[in-house]
Amino acid sequence: MPNPTAAMLVIGDEILSGRTRDANLHHLSQQFTAAGIDLKEARIVSDDHDAIVAAVDALRETHDILVTSGGIGPTHDDITADAVAAAFGVHIDVREDAKALMEARYAKTGRELNEARLRMARIPDGAELIENDVSAAPGFRIGNVYVMAGVPSVFTSMLDRVLPTLNAGTPLMSQSIRVERAEGDIAGPLRDLAREFDDLAFGSYPFSENGVYGANVVVRGTDSARLNEAATRLHALFS
Amino acid sequence: MPNPTAAMLVIGDEILSGRTRDANLHHLSQQFTAAGIDLKEARIVSDDHDAIVAAVDALRETHDILVTSGGIGPTHDDITADAVAAAFGVHIDVREDAKALMEARYAKTGRELNEARLRMARIPDGAELIENDVSAAPGFRIGNVYVMAGVPSVFTSMLDRVLPTLNAGTPLMSQSIRVERAEGDIAGPLRDLAREFDDLAFGSYPFSENGVYGANVVVRGTDSARLNEAATRLHALFS
Repeated sequence: MPNPTAAMLVIGDEILSGRTRDANLHHLSQQFTAAGIDLKEARIVSDDHDAIVAAVDALRETHDILVTSGGIGPTHDDITADAVAAAFGVHIDVREDAKALMEARYAKTGRELNEARLRMARIPDGAELIENDVSAAPGFRIGNVYVMAGVPSVFTSMLDRVLPTLNAGTPLMSQSIRVERAEGDIAGPLRDLAREFDDLAFGSYPFSENGVYGANVVVRGTDSARLNEAATRLHALFS
Repeated sequence: MPNPTAAMLVIGDEILSGRTRDANLHHLSQQFTAAGIDLKEARIVSDDHDAIVAAVDALRETHDILVTSGGIGPTHDDITADAVAAAFGVHIDVREDAKALMEARYAKTGRELNEARLRMARIPDGAELIENDVSAAPGFRIGNVYVMAGVPSVFTSMLDRVLPTLNAGTPLMSQSIRVERAEGDIAGPLRDLAREFDDLAFGSYPFSENGVYGANVVVRGTDSARLNEAATRLHALFS
């Protein structure tokens, strides 16, 4: 059975304006690779209702799993939950289970569940809450879409809850070989080897350090014996 | 006149597998913001011909400018140039001007312009070369699409060449105020202020540091007097 496919949607003006460098995509990509879930595409859109709805609809239909990050806080620019509800065509309002969850947490910290915070209890009908260990407000899953926070510590905590519930595939393993020759000098033999091992994926990532040109050649696949075989051949070719 | 809009397409399995953390989007977003070009969307796709063609077509039609990074090196997984040619429906082959450029550089370094390196001289018909100060192989512009390298130092160098040729808009300026109160406590007054200053964009980015909860409130706009006015009001409200 092929691995499940996934897409990620990052929501936030702060990423596109250059104020913040996104960290959640990098974390998700590593976690999904380890779990055997193939992250095929990512999109980053601004805090714009129509842009979010269009991206959610495009990505949830073409992938088994869609993870979103960002836009579920208490401020006026947090519009992800409403946009996801619109994409699914379902009703959204403050939901009692989310409200109760937040009340329980705020009771401990002495915070007030004011109108702004109640906004974070807006959950689409039919969605299942995603709790986290960092903050009171939950994310949610609706259909194959997992709506999670943008703050990296909260995103990570939510992903820890979600990962065990996903149908994992065969983890993609990799071997990396550092070659201190310019990429243009290894490209020919590398192409031939990639054709021979057509069940594996070969990538070449050039670097230059202190005047030394080289490339990290990475082989990816799900069969460790084949990976070892390819790595042996790479060493023989390039070292 | 409204600012030009832009999109970015990052191409590379290494980003989606978590091997590499992309750096070019963050750099481009900062440079475009400073130049008054509104980066509206970014997508990241794998080294897959059809995925690249579809993303190039979608993004070049909906934005004034599309910048791509990645997939223009000498190895077999570098397929961006051919995919962009396919998206435009134009012929692509080794082009003499690109070849001459590379020969001139290689003559200085003693490198061989072998078959693999010649792959980097494949340029679509009608495209204009984008040179860079780091490596021999050029990027190119075709229509409103700027095809650039994935290696950050080369991407940066190519962008330095491209930026002065773009129709810049009015630079987006911002003021940032650090508020040491939980986001849920400032969200109400912040929403009211955002409604009053509806020519500016207000963002709120929560943090927690050593047990202190707070938010960086960022106001963006093109009129510095209005920005100062809003910043003064923010200080009065939250400090």
